Amino acid sequence: MFAVIMAGGSGTRFWPASRESVPKQFLRITSDRTMFEETLARVRLFAADDRIYSVVCSAHAELVRGLLSSNLPQTLTEPVGRNTAACIGLSAIHISRRDPDEPIAFLPADHFVADAECFARTINAAAEAARSGAIITLGIRPTRPETGYGYIEIGAEAGRARNEPYFRMERFVEKPDQATALGYLTGGRHLWNSGIFVLSARAILREFENCLPALAEGLREIESAIGRADYSEVLGRVYERIQSVSIDYGVMEKTSSPVFVFKADFGWSDVGSWQALYELRRADYDEQDNLLMGDAVAIGAKGNFVYAESERVVALLGVENLIVVDTPDAVLVARLDRSQDVKKFPEMLKARGRSDVA
Amino acid sequence: MFAVIMAGGSGTRFWPASRESVPKQFLRITSDRTMFEETLARVRLFAADDRIYSVVCSAHAELVRGLLSSNLPQTLTEPVGRNTAACIGLSAIHISRRDPDEPIAFLPADHFVADAECFARTINAAAEAARSGAIITLGIRPTRPETGYGYIEIGAEAGRARNEPYFRMERFVEKPDQATALGYLTGGRHLWNSGIFVLSARAILREFENCLPALAEGLREIESAIGRADYSEVLGRVYERIQSVSIDYGVMEKTSSPVFVFKADFGWSDVGSWQALYELRRADYDEQDNLLMGDAVAIGAKGNFVYAESERVVALLGVENLIVVDTPDAVLVARLDRSQDVKKFPEMLKARGRSDVA
Repeated sequence: MFAVIMAGGSGTRFWPASRESVPKQFLRITSDRTMFEETLARVRLFAADDRIYSVVCSAHAELVRGLLSSNLPQTLTEPVGRNTAACIGLSAIHISRRDPDEPIAFLPADHFVADAECFARTINAAAEAARSGAIITLGIRPTRPETGYGYIEIGAEAGRARNEPYFRMERFVEKPDQATALGYLTGGRHLWNSGIFVLSARAILREFENCLPALAEGLREIESAIGRADYSEVLGRVYERIQSVSIDYGVMEKTSSPVFVFKADFGWSDVGSWQALYELRRADYDEQDNLLMGDAVAIGAKGNFVYAESERVVALLGVENLIVVDTPDAVLVARLDRSQDVKKFPEMLKARGRSDVA
Repeated sequence: MFAVIMAGGSGTRFWPASRESVPKQFLRITSDRTMFEETLARVRLFAADDRIYSVVCSAHAELVRGLLSSNLPQTLTEPVGRNTAACIGLSAIHISRRDPDEPIAFLPADHFVADAECFARTINAAAEAARSGAIITLGIRPTRPETGYGYIEIGAEAGRARNEPYFRMERFVEKPDQATALGYLTGGRHLWNSGIFVLSARAILREFENCLPALAEGLREIESAIGRADYSEVLGRVYERIQSVSIDYGVMEKTSSPVFVFKADFGWSDVGSWQALYELRRADYDEQDNLLMGDAVAIGAKGNFVYAESERVVALLGVENLIVVDTPDAVLVARLDRSQDVKKFPEMLKARGRSDVA
């Protein structure tokens, strides 16, 4: 099977560690390796090196090359980020030329998975189901009443692959409120939307023709230029005009084809904020529940997260439940439970003429 | 009259901005000038340039020379800090050769004074009273039940100078508890000990003979070497052996001579912590009571104090009542009301082999 690591994102939720020039998937936050490298290691459990692709923004191509000395996956570059539909489409037209019917696992480069073996088993089962041309997605069994994720509502069991049951998808559900999320947790019919899809190039390109015809047309134009001298020029021209839309919104919510869902249980997080990162690294807390990454000292401080990139010492005194991020040109001090608002700083700093730190 | 700026201190209460190499009096924390420069400007309101002395530790002599391009006060260096008694003694033996009976105002270099004109008037009145050979100190009228200061208990009015009454000192009182401090505030007989003294060289050297005979002997030895080639060597030898004691404890609490007190009202603070500094710079707060010194941005943050020395941006999100200090090699994040414990970090860091940031 094929695998596509979608590494084109450029979030600002980990500012000031993440920047436009170094988005989250290139940070060493979940381990000593970047999230991109972690994802690649996971993918190699089920895909051969010559069948692994990554899609990155051209601005980060150099960065990716630096990370991957050998065993480089095929890297496709996008001139600008145009969300997941375009990213998936671009890789699909390239893979289609090699084998249009072989399943492809599309995986975000910036997710955390605790149990990589379990992850590989689920992907293999999903690939088996996708061989018939079906659209497969992975839904994560909720472990808490999370209001920060979208959900997938599932219906009856639709079949089995490698002894794993899969279910008919009823619909995508936007981020719920607390009461609704609690109902989902106990109801058993709602799973977190992982953003992980498994289907063949033929299947996804067919869906684009039906759901996103303008994108499909653009992809045909790029495809016809593959191997030609003007490929980059065509790519740039098409990316200039195509719509920025997610695969969830542009295809999965609109398609009339059936979508099938595997229930996944491999310890998953989209690591959407400093707080989410703090929570998933519980094993590294000190006795006062501080997570100290970097050179930090603490007196009477509890439940804090220090992420220090530089040689500088970070000293905490009497504070609780803070995230402190120290980088060479910016320092963040925030309440951990406000860390979803961190992305406001890059905007604010740009408006103040400090794009250098945004 | 003479003035002596006592700049030999080396506190760590403003770590990481203050270090052994750059103590508080050389920080620009109360204005755009260092506290040393502020003190010098204040002193020039009542003393002629050629009658102003400063006493600094030899480790800081270069730093002081850098601050004072012209109008340099006579600078006396101490090989090591030996507290206020030695500092006062050293300057007294030098000034004694010029005029043993002229009053000298001894002033710490690291105090804040809001009303410099009022300060100068009080010092002039104190000098008038000191011309008779008396020991004069300044007591600050308390404005809150402060438990962080020592107090002076005063008795009956003892006389007037330049129309200002002065009082007999009854005794020095150590830092009181909250209830006692509240009693002092309303009782009217207790003043904050300012650490500012006015008396002649003859008077203070006489007190040393009575109260600190070993120090007096050492001072005579240094005095005999003034102008000789071996002055530095003698100074070093004497400083090696003499006791480190404050003028309050070593002389003022022990003397059998009367001590007189002027009540002062010029808006005084010893600026003993980041919290004290935050409180006295109320005029510079933003609308959310943040005091932002340096390049800082805040979202939903209240009552914080950012002191950023570098070009780095400091971003605050949702936090309250913190002190954040950013320096090139260390960052402090502390609760403002715990800022008296900041001095623990240099010790802790030294113990961990990080003397470079202590």
